[in-house]
Amino acid sequence: MSELSRQVMTIAKKAKEAAAILAHIPTETKNRALKEMALQIENRTSDLIRENEKDVKDAKIKGLSGAMLDRLTLNEKTINEIAKGLIEVAQLPDPVGNVTSMWKRPNGLMVGKMRIPLGVIGIIYEARPNVTADAAALCLKSGNSVILRGGSEAINSNLAIAHILQNVLKRMEIPEAAIQAVPMTDRAAVSELLKLEEYIDLIIPRGGEELIRTVVNLSKIPVIKHYKGVCHVFVDADADLEMAIDISLNAKAQRPGVCNAMETLLVHQDIAAAFLPRLAAKFNEIGVALRGCERTLEILSGIEPARESDWYEEYLDLILAVRIVDDIDQAIEHIEKYGSLHTESIVTRNYKNAHRFINEVNSSTVLANASTRFSDGFQLGLGAEIGISTTKLHAFGPMGLEELTTTKFIIYGNGQLRT
Amino acid sequence: MSELSRQVMTIAKKAKEAAAILAHIPTETKNRALKEMALQIENRTSDLIRENEKDVKDAKIKGLSGAMLDRLTLNEKTINEIAKGLIEVAQLPDPVGNVTSMWKRPNGLMVGKMRIPLGVIGIIYEARPNVTADAAALCLKSGNSVILRGGSEAINSNLAIAHILQNVLKRMEIPEAAIQAVPMTDRAAVSELLKLEEYIDLIIPRGGEELIRTVVNLSKIPVIKHYKGVCHVFVDADADLEMAIDISLNAKAQRPGVCNAMETLLVHQDIAAAFLPRLAAKFNEIGVALRGCERTLEILSGIEPARESDWYEEYLDLILAVRIVDDIDQAIEHIEKYGSLHTESIVTRNYKNAHRFINEVNSSTVLANASTRFSDGFQLGLGAEIGISTTKLHAFGPMGLEELTTTKFIIYGNGQLRT
Repeated sequence: MSELSRQVMTIAKKAKEAAAILAHIPTETKNRALKEMALQIENRTSDLIRENEKDVKDAKIKGLSGAMLDRLTLNEKTINEIAKGLIEVAQLPDPVGNVTSMWKRPNGLMVGKMRIPLGVIGIIYEARPNVTADAAALCLKSGNSVILRGGSEAINSNLAIAHILQNVLKRMEIPEAAIQAVPMTDRAAVSELLKLEEYIDLIIPRGGEELIRTVVNLSKIPVIKHYKGVCHVFVDADADLEMAIDISLNAKAQRPGVCNAMETLLVHQDIAAAFLPRLAAKFNEIGVALRGCERTLEILSGIEPARESDWYEEYLDLILAVRIVDDIDQAIEHIEKYGSLHTESIVTRNYKNAHRFINEVNSSTVLANASTRFSDGFQLGLGAEIGISTTKLHAFGPMGLEELTTTKFIIYGNGQLRT
Repeated sequence: MSELSRQVMTIAKKAKEAAAILAHIPTETKNRALKEMALQIENRTSDLIRENEKDVKDAKIKGLSGAMLDRLTLNEKTINEIAKGLIEVAQLPDPVGNVTSMWKRPNGLMVGKMRIPLGVIGIIYEARPNVTADAAALCLKSGNSVILRGGSEAINSNLAIAHILQNVLKRMEIPEAAIQAVPMTDRAAVSELLKLEEYIDLIIPRGGEELIRTVVNLSKIPVIKHYKGVCHVFVDADADLEMAIDISLNAKAQRPGVCNAMETLLVHQDIAAAFLPRLAAKFNEIGVALRGCERTLEILSGIEPARESDWYEEYLDLILAVRIVDDIDQAIEHIEKYGSLHTESIVTRNYKNAHRFINEVNSSTVLANASTRFSDGFQLGLGAEIGISTTKLHAFGPMGLEELTTTKFIIYGNGQLRT
């Protein structure tokens, strides 16, 4: 066993030991720790900025892109937001110990299902120091140990944040190993981590498709992930035109770089001639480039044609593929073929079609008459979001605190025997 | 790509296509199909026995053990039980389409979670033809396509059963590929199947620890499993002695060869001298051999000493390891160290200790004052059991029809936009 794999295993073993204790720490203690962490993060703002400056300096030398530098950089405002995030998690209900249902068997046994933590969660993410505090808070609140492995470009920032959080744990007599940041920037440390199925219960990668594919390929541990969000809005023949325009604009352009932004617009043939020119004018104003199917090009002459590959594309940009479909059947077929099981919305005044779309489209979030941008843990009322899953096992769609738990069966008897 | 891998991929692709249709088939159609399957299985009893005789003959030549031959053999009675099982599944509630909860957001969005099928499920099992019908029925009812891969010793029986089920699907215009038995007995077919993560959503192995470990090691697809059940009963100082004896006997000996039978008995030191001799006399009568810790040997002189390895052992036989513990803390520590996260029970009249045991022991089923033998889908009221999971992702403990589904978010709006 190499020195590196020994070090990584030590981290994982300590996390598992901590998890056994953490599972039974009272909600009140966890909440006090989270609030104290917020205070300490704020108090240590200048130290954090100093550590972060080392990362930013190195990143500039390495030639990181502007967007990446932006996400890497900490300042008073972003540090204040990190602290606020910690307090928000303290205010969320604790899922651990909730009995989600209980029933009585004919023999008198009372059978229930109680939420318990998953155990140890590994988070693999890019160079975004705020994820360090955010993920640590959600795991702590749900009673899970966390192993944090952020992008190497943020190593000084991440270790500084983790150090502050750990100091609070220590003072509150919560095992320090409940929150650990991997100090080794070597990529091999990730591979080692992903082998440790005996100690780690779940891996959540947060980042681009490439990061996620790498993690999935290497991991022996279950991974909850979504590769991409090719989200659709289907404007039905009976749509309210104003609503359809508002939802299309919001879904595409309110924040185009995120996974729940619309990437393909499907338009019923009966409404296309009335709808598309008005929409195109609006999109033109805000700089959204359209790529249309053949029938769309007949209505909107000035736009680029969409190729087959466009239907699979997650642009994450001010670009939109537009296709005219014969009917709702063809819309659903298109989504089944090209979609990513992320988020789809129908805009319609037709009750039957809304009902059908909601029931038949098996993406992780399906909406009627609302923007795809609502597919988000906070927006759905989960209180938080640790990630979005587009695989059906364990969790499907935005994941909050509950999705960081499982349920055990609890059974109260008075001497029942099986016959 | 080899011919074998091409064949296996064809099976998986057809299963996925069938799943898309099966997800939306009405409950009533699925129930009629299940009842018709039961009828056809009964009608074809003599054909099934003839096919099964081929398997049994080959198995005898191969020298299969008596227990294995017993599970392989079909007769009028076992075929009748298969048919009854199909009817029972028809009578269970359909989980698909259930909205498990729904809430209103401040902006008026109605957000709910709706159960949908997982998609395609692969079942890998030993030479037990009844599993073919049983698993197919549970998957059909929950809207999932199933790929059945039973032990090669049962190939003729399995194909005959699957053929009957498929004929019913065909006549009812349900895609035949919703139920497929793998016709290739080559072991390599399993390896090929376990690679097809693009088409298969979940693998459930049913069988001994060796089979399960092989599947887990080969699989790229999520596997729900339990390796073994090292179940404990802890007899507390305050236990009702009669109840403790009855529960111990039931948990150990009512059916010793199953995973929810007790394998280790933990006894509080204060009650050991009163309890153990009475229990030993009872166990002696029915032929249960005890293996005791040092302190147990002081009370029960005639028994074998337990070695360290005994605490990890799943005997599946009339053997029991017995340890005297200082208190509930030591009992819980023992379970944490040696247990398999399967099923544990405390026998006590002490409210505080029952409360603590139920809350602190994080095995998949935890009982107070009842036999471990209740850890079973039917006994817990799930209506059915497709397997037991001792891993925490997706499902933990006995799995019924609901555990063969996931939930999608459904959202009803009236033009909401994200700001």
